[in-house]
Amino acid sequence: MVLPTKNDLQQAYQRVQLHVHRTPVLTSRLINEYSGSSIYFKCENFQKMGAFKMRGAVNAILQVDNKEKGVVTHSSGNFAQALALAAKNLGVKAYIVMPENAPSVKKEAVLSYGGIITESESTLASREAEAARIVNETGATFLHPSNNTSVLLGQGTSAIELLEAHPDLDHIFVPVGGGGLIAGTALATSYFGVDCTTIGGEPSLVDDAYRSLLSGQIETNKNTQTIADGLRTNLGDRNFPIIKELVGEIIRVDEDEIIRAMKLLWERLKIVIEPSSAVAFAALVKEKKRFKDKKIGIILSGGNVDLGSLPF
Amino acid sequence: MVLPTKNDLQQAYQRVQLHVHRTPVLTSRLINEYSGSSIYFKCENFQKMGAFKMRGAVNAILQVDNKEKGVVTHSSGNFAQALALAAKNLGVKAYIVMPENAPSVKKEAVLSYGGIITESESTLASREAEAARIVNETGATFLHPSNNTSVLLGQGTSAIELLEAHPDLDHIFVPVGGGGLIAGTALATSYFGVDCTTIGGEPSLVDDAYRSLLSGQIETNKNTQTIADGLRTNLGDRNFPIIKELVGEIIRVDEDEIIRAMKLLWERLKIVIEPSSAVAFAALVKEKKRFKDKKIGIILSGGNVDLGSLPF
Repeated sequence: MVLPTKNDLQQAYQRVQLHVHRTPVLTSRLINEYSGSSIYFKCENFQKMGAFKMRGAVNAILQVDNKEKGVVTHSSGNFAQALALAAKNLGVKAYIVMPENAPSVKKEAVLSYGGIITESESTLASREAEAARIVNETGATFLHPSNNTSVLLGQGTSAIELLEAHPDLDHIFVPVGGGGLIAGTALATSYFGVDCTTIGGEPSLVDDAYRSLLSGQIETNKNTQTIADGLRTNLGDRNFPIIKELVGEIIRVDEDEIIRAMKLLWERLKIVIEPSSAVAFAALVKEKKRFKDKKIGIILSGGNVDLGSLPF
Repeated sequence: MVLPTKNDLQQAYQRVQLHVHRTPVLTSRLINEYSGSSIYFKCENFQKMGAFKMRGAVNAILQVDNKEKGVVTHSSGNFAQALALAAKNLGVKAYIVMPENAPSVKKEAVLSYGGIITESESTLASREAEAARIVNETGATFLHPSNNTSVLLGQGTSAIELLEAHPDLDHIFVPVGGGGLIAGTALATSYFGVDCTTIGGEPSLVDDAYRSLLSGQIETNKNTQTIADGLRTNLGDRNFPIIKELVGEIIRVDEDEIIRAMKLLWERLKIVIEPSSAVAFAALVKEKKRFKDKKIGIILSGGNVDLGSLPF
């Protein structure tokens, strides 16, 4: 596969700028002392709808040809909200297929952004069938939450902003779920960084990306019971080739390491992040000796968390 | 009493600038829709040591004559940490009198900033006696957490920053505890605002400031069991005259209103604030019809909260 070019990514960056927040970068002296490195936290939890997914949704919708027919996705997570809000802001209809057992708070969020919800069974097959039916009936364009080149290019724009502010980062750590964020970030570090590489953090319980890099093919997970609910999905044929080419390392972390990292960031940065966001920082903490004195960017991917069921 | 002048406040502002963060101002479209007003949240939870108290501590220490003999205060709250950290950063010794039953996490924070802790009984009389003994033995200068003109001028610098960014605010809402923040803020709105007034939010359970404004003299509380643990203290003779002169209104809020306001800010702004910080926003929400279409500043006073015992 030919990788997307620097120009592709540059165009995505220009395309989304008017429609997303340029999120702040936070630092903490205490966290730097604790980790032994200089960390720049890119706060996508402050992004519109609360996660980086807004970037990919905006970029993808802006490139759809038949916008008047709408867009469709299947997601029970942040991409559902992102597509609904991005579509609303751009004057486009958004059909969102959600499993019938999705938390009502997530359905309400999608509805509040004007998304048109269709319920499916909770299996991937049922979700895909329902989305395909909507595409056939309405002519809407299907946009996959992570395995779509326009989406992953949009996700890479967060790292571009971070590198504009801090051009000399040695590494950018990101969480790995469906692969859109890490693929987009790897393109950004490759094209816009100076000797900067992208490193993934992944829950040990759903280490499909780690195993995929080892085997050279897309692996799946038997169990998906990690607290990092945004990271349960697998890589796809659009993002895996990029990851295989550009990502040198994925560090696996255990559930208690994720929770400790999440709590430390809440306490020290005074910000609300979701468990998936803490995985990249947990990965750095786990290997902190190896990254001593390095200048590290960490993308805090989102802040949509149920305050009624925190792990601490 | 002659009020501190605009020049006094201006000098405090210049004095603290190198030693405190210029904290960010956050907005939220959804919160504005909910309240019907345009709100600018001044995030002192991102201040050094996690609260606005750093400002007053810095300003007060910088004006102490015998710095080499150190400073002393009694506090079980944020001012203990603030004085310890400010003193450390300025190369001054800080003696902190804390009640023996203060949470160990708070004692550890003071110790981590290099504060020298002396334990007292939990009564105010015991704390004051212990502080007086230290003053006598060491020659250190006593700095009260809220009833000290240098301290309250320092606390007013947060509102100056907010008004520099948004000169046309109609009101600034602040929580009312010992009276340092509201007195300093009232001076700032009076001297630096354009028709801007300061409004206090106070828990109904500890409405001493509300009753003090009514009676014209400093009232106290029988019960101090509010969740807003930073607001349990009473006004003093240094700040009450300023409050009486410049603060037109204090709005009382119930415990469930505080908790709802706190949760909404966590969910929508994605930031960690302590219950006391939510009181000012809760006050605005309670009277939101009256403040419709107004431009409102709210000082989010701090973010030091025990994540293990959240009220939601």
